[in-house]
Amino acid sequence: MTLYVIGVGPGDPSLITVKGLEVLRDSKVVTGWGSVIERFSSYIQGKQVIRLNYKEEEKQLNEIMKLAKNENVAFLNHGDPAVSDFQLLNKLKKLCMDNRVELVIIPGVSSIIRALHIIGKDLSEIVFLTFHVRGEINYDEIKKFLNTGRGILINPEPYPDGVKRIALKLKEYGCNFITLTIMEKLTYQDEKVYNFNVDEIITRDLKFSDLTIVYIPPCSFS
Amino acid sequence: MTLYVIGVGPGDPSLITVKGLEVLRDSKVVTGWGSVIERFSSYIQGKQVIRLNYKEEEKQLNEIMKLAKNENVAFLNHGDPAVSDFQLLNKLKKLCMDNRVELVIIPGVSSIIRALHIIGKDLSEIVFLTFHVRGEINYDEIKKFLNTGRGILINPEPYPDGVKRIALKLKEYGCNFITLTIMEKLTYQDEKVYNFNVDEIITRDLKFSDLTIVYIPPCSFS
Repeated sequence: MTLYVIGVGPGDPSLITVKGLEVLRDSKVVTGWGSVIERFSSYIQGKQVIRLNYKEEEKQLNEIMKLAKNENVAFLNHGDPAVSDFQLLNKLKKLCMDNRVELVIIPGVSSIIRALHIIGKDLSEIVFLTFHVRGEINYDEIKKFLNTGRGILINPEPYPDGVKRIALKLKEYGCNFITLTIMEKLTYQDEKVYNFNVDEIITRDLKFSDLTIVYIPPCSFS
Repeated sequence: MTLYVIGVGPGDPSLITVKGLEVLRDSKVVTGWGSVIERFSSYIQGKQVIRLNYKEEEKQLNEIMKLAKNENVAFLNHGDPAVSDFQLLNKLKKLCMDNRVELVIIPGVSSIIRALHIIGKDLSEIVFLTFHVRGEINYDEIKKFLNTGRGILINPEPYPDGVKRIALKLKEYGCNFITLTIMEKLTYQDEKVYNFNVDEIITRDLKFSDLTIVYIPPCSFS
């Protein structure tokens, strides 16, 4: 059978695509991280639900593969998997190949798209970076794109001080005068947008949600 | 009343969001370029429809503004407006402000998202460029990002030889050995994906649809 990875959008459940919702309705098994599953609770009654958690991930993914041999499985993915979940996607691709399960990705609205609407920019005016990954973070990626004339949209590390860690690096590069746009929980009912300059973030020790996207405007330095 | 700019997705009409479809159903007036309106013909019966065309654009946009003072208007936009329609979006923002019409953007799935699924890359591994704009095209933008270690996803100029024009530039930069992935009509029923190297595109004088996205892999040059 088929494992459908459905990009369900950035937060507001009505931003799932019509196609994604149809596949979700037709699947007997639904999986995903708890917070994403939660958003679609009204559509998953009567289905077998596997709420992923980091500690049991490997075991759970194997269980999903076993189920996917006999049933269609809907894997609900925050935003779109090609934007900030490539590590998981690569794991799923390999598992599906090993288990001869078909993998179909249904594209979704990315929170990056919503962020672009808020800052009034086009995707061709920014570069996207993600620090929302497992493994070592290379902060110098920021420096590489800071003076290309493009702004940077970035997922900070998913900790309360993730934005501050970026601000500290920007100060190190001599970009402490620029103002960052910090977007929390995009399209959720409690979506928030802030503007703070780098020094403010550091001195006020500002903390943010782990669902945060930051816009860094271009900064020329030598 | 409100002008809703709805990102309707890259081609397959079922990739519109549930929210976008609800707003479309509730709007008495629907507008957009003809090819986009066409995709949603089953949802627009009984509505007033304004099919935009380049020659009459200014007059038509003013007409839409007049209507939007009394009715909600749904503006159907290919993909998402923040990805490749910022020129039109900026025009709409100004018109709405001048006419005191509320503007709401409903995010959509971008064809860039689908292209990333096909090439198996994450948004953080590419830079997006668009030549699908009015006005002068700066081909040197390609060069700027070619050896940053990132691939480039690019909308060529909307002419049959748009891809060839890119290939000619790549040859000029000494990148004639790389293979481009050319993606036509993404998520449409006649979606096609090709791999050609730069020299092949030039010598075979290859032509493509105006709904094409090209992936250029990283190319180091001095």
